[in-house]
Amino acid sequence: MAQDITKSVVLLSGGLDSAVTAAISIKECETVCAISFDYGQRHIKELQSAKHLAEVLGITDHYVVAVNLSQWGQSALTDTHIPVPTSGIQPHVIPVTYVPGRNTVFLAIALSLAEARQADAIYLGINAVDYSGYPDCRPEYLQAFQELAKLSSKAAIEGRVPRLIAPLVHMTKLEIVQKGLELGVPIEATWSCYQGETEPCGVCDSCRIRDAALIQAGRPDLATPIGRQKWQGN
Amino acid sequence: MAQDITKSVVLLSGGLDSAVTAAISIKECETVCAISFDYGQRHIKELQSAKHLAEVLGITDHYVVAVNLSQWGQSALTDTHIPVPTSGIQPHVIPVTYVPGRNTVFLAIALSLAEARQADAIYLGINAVDYSGYPDCRPEYLQAFQELAKLSSKAAIEGRVPRLIAPLVHMTKLEIVQKGLELGVPIEATWSCYQGETEPCGVCDSCRIRDAALIQAGRPDLATPIGRQKWQGN
Repeated sequence: MAQDITKSVVLLSGGLDSAVTAAISIKECETVCAISFDYGQRHIKELQSAKHLAEVLGITDHYVVAVNLSQWGQSALTDTHIPVPTSGIQPHVIPVTYVPGRNTVFLAIALSLAEARQADAIYLGINAVDYSGYPDCRPEYLQAFQELAKLSSKAAIEGRVPRLIAPLVHMTKLEIVQKGLELGVPIEATWSCYQGETEPCGVCDSCRIRDAALIQAGRPDLATPIGRQKWQGN
Repeated sequence: MAQDITKSVVLLSGGLDSAVTAAISIKECETVCAISFDYGQRHIKELQSAKHLAEVLGITDHYVVAVNLSQWGQSALTDTHIPVPTSGIQPHVIPVTYVPGRNTVFLAIALSLAEARQADAIYLGINAVDYSGYPDCRPEYLQAFQELAKLSSKAAIEGRVPRLIAPLVHMTKLEIVQKGLELGVPIEATWSCYQGETEPCGVCDSCRIRDAALIQAGRPDLATPIGRQKWQGN
């Protein structure tokens, strides 16, 4: 618990992790402001989930910021010429779904908002356990950004440095799902699939990690092929 | 000189410092790509200068990225309700023209572009001598961002970390002007005024610092009241 936080900014992608993070932030802070990004992602659909989740969670102060990283692409998420991998996670390989600089861009913009709103904390749902090996999801990355935040702003010079809080960073995906269920997060309203089609594909890395955890938690996602299969098998 | 740089990204605002920085980058690197930002600034006019400068300097690869920081304002440059100070620079006070998180946002986006383009360096025209005391213009800030860049990207994990190069950081404004003249930078084509009107106001901090240096260098800017006055006085 972080009882001393009056105001926080939470990064809300519309995915499972960010929804759970938002719920944690609401529990720990007096006021929560959410920020989502339209960055030219293939799964732009996640923003519908982000807006819906903000509403359901009672966050009325929600920014959707456009910053087009697809102009230079180089990721399967921002360049439709690069297919999203569907054959499973390769250990020790950073997949092509990695978006150059994405979390640094998101955190930088959140830091600007946090300073403008005099927020004490920035919550983000990065995770370094059941994840795709993205470098900007690691605790050491977060620590480096925290050091930068101590030097970058007028607020910091005046003694107000927003704390970066990543409550899920050391949790397994199952623990994240369980935390979400405990907090009443509407998991079915979150969107994790990288493809952004009508239904989740069930075979991209993001679907695979999510489905496995939901099945483990006894709550298979009926919107996905693997979830339905599991349900029928029960 | 940084002879080992093949490709660089340069932050080009359209102002004097960034134009000189771009010229230095062109001299030191084989290929230069420029990036400018439409961030909701009052002096959006500077982007016309940025585009013109890129053309004149022969930079064909130029991105203008929109990222609206005026949504939360809190700066005279991004909120038209806050007037731009015109009564002169107050020592040891960060003025209201400071934009929360601006350089962190710009550098983060430039880092994304640099990684996508496999650039070796990011050039930026920050200056910590004749400046307005912005915290994100100091060498220690830059060092912290460099540390972050070492951890944030797939490229860094593979051993490619773009170097942040701030060639003007320890120069006086007069030295910057002289460097610009030496490199043939079309100083008259740059735009520094915070007001963004038809002519430079001559009384905002940016105009004051620029005019004083141009007068010292014997090249008063005839577009400004103080420049014309100086010219008539000669």
